[in-house]
Amino acid sequence: MAKKEPKQLDELFHDTLKDIYFAEKKLVTTLPKMAKAAQNPELKAAFTKHAKETEGQVKRLEQVFAVIQKKPQGKKCEAIVGLTSEGDEIAKEYKGSPALDAGLLAAAQAVEHYEISRYGTLKTWAEELQLSEAVRLLDATLQEEKKTDVALSKLAETAVNQEAEAA
Amino acid sequence: MAKKEPKQLDELFHDTLKDIYFAEKKLVTTLPKMAKAAQNPELKAAFTKHAKETEGQVKRLEQVFAVIQKKPQGKKCEAIVGLTSEGDEIAKEYKGSPALDAGLLAAAQAVEHYEISRYGTLKTWAEELQLSEAVRLLDATLQEEKKTDVALSKLAETAVNQEAEAA
Repeated sequence: MAKKEPKQLDELFHDTLKDIYFAEKKLVTTLPKMAKAAQNPELKAAFTKHAKETEGQVKRLEQVFAVIQKKPQGKKCEAIVGLTSEGDEIAKEYKGSPALDAGLLAAAQAVEHYEISRYGTLKTWAEELQLSEAVRLLDATLQEEKKTDVALSKLAETAVNQEAEAA
Repeated sequence: MAKKEPKQLDELFHDTLKDIYFAEKKLVTTLPKMAKAAQNPELKAAFTKHAKETEGQVKRLEQVFAVIQKKPQGKKCEAIVGLTSEGDEIAKEYKGSPALDAGLLAAAQAVEHYEISRYGTLKTWAEELQLSEAVRLLDATLQEEKKTDVALSKLAETAVNQEAEAA
């Protein structure tokens, strides 16, 4: 299989793992702030629940680092910096507005989609690299993120946007 | 319906429209660069096709601006800046590597997911705001983005990653 650059996909896997590790650790601090900013109690609860889950996802990533015998290490992820800064902006610009929750929810959904994409990619690469334990760990988080996205979408279609529109 | 802040969801809709308009215009210039950087001919073709589609999506957004009687205008979208800078980084760091295409594909999928999230949000808000023509336009692009994501996922599971792994 290996000829001249055998470790390339391994390296890409490792780099992307560092990227999502940075992202999840950032979210561990961002999600409680979003829960605090949210007005709707269901949205507040959803953010709080996902903050807890995210702590578990960080631990799972640490196990994936162990699988490839690397030290857990983050690498600045420009995408998550951009995504969370959009959430911060909304929290400031729409403070006190009935549309605040709709904006926070949209920001959270964008983050979820980023994570779903990253975990999907990492899982596919782990399969290629025959890292079955990593596949299991990454898939566990992928399923959690998908559930969170569905829960947020339901909130978007019901309470939160109607609140904004009826204000 | 309107009591004291009747235009809040309208404003959020308008702000987010500016955000995705900036993002799509950025992608009109980024996708051809990614097509140029890609090695696999199928991936190259997928990027080229999506670049063309993106031009149509920009036009559709201009029609949505017309629906709400606003001038088409972009607003810097930090998320897309971050997402595309990750793609640039991969193109540089993995130049000449068999894993280059896998990395470019992952970057493109992250962008697709961002767009899917944004168009889903905008469509939901347009429904709340009873902007039926905007709903139609946003949904047309949403369906295109989802198709692109499926096409990219297929490439990820077949040619591109196996190429990287077998190198």
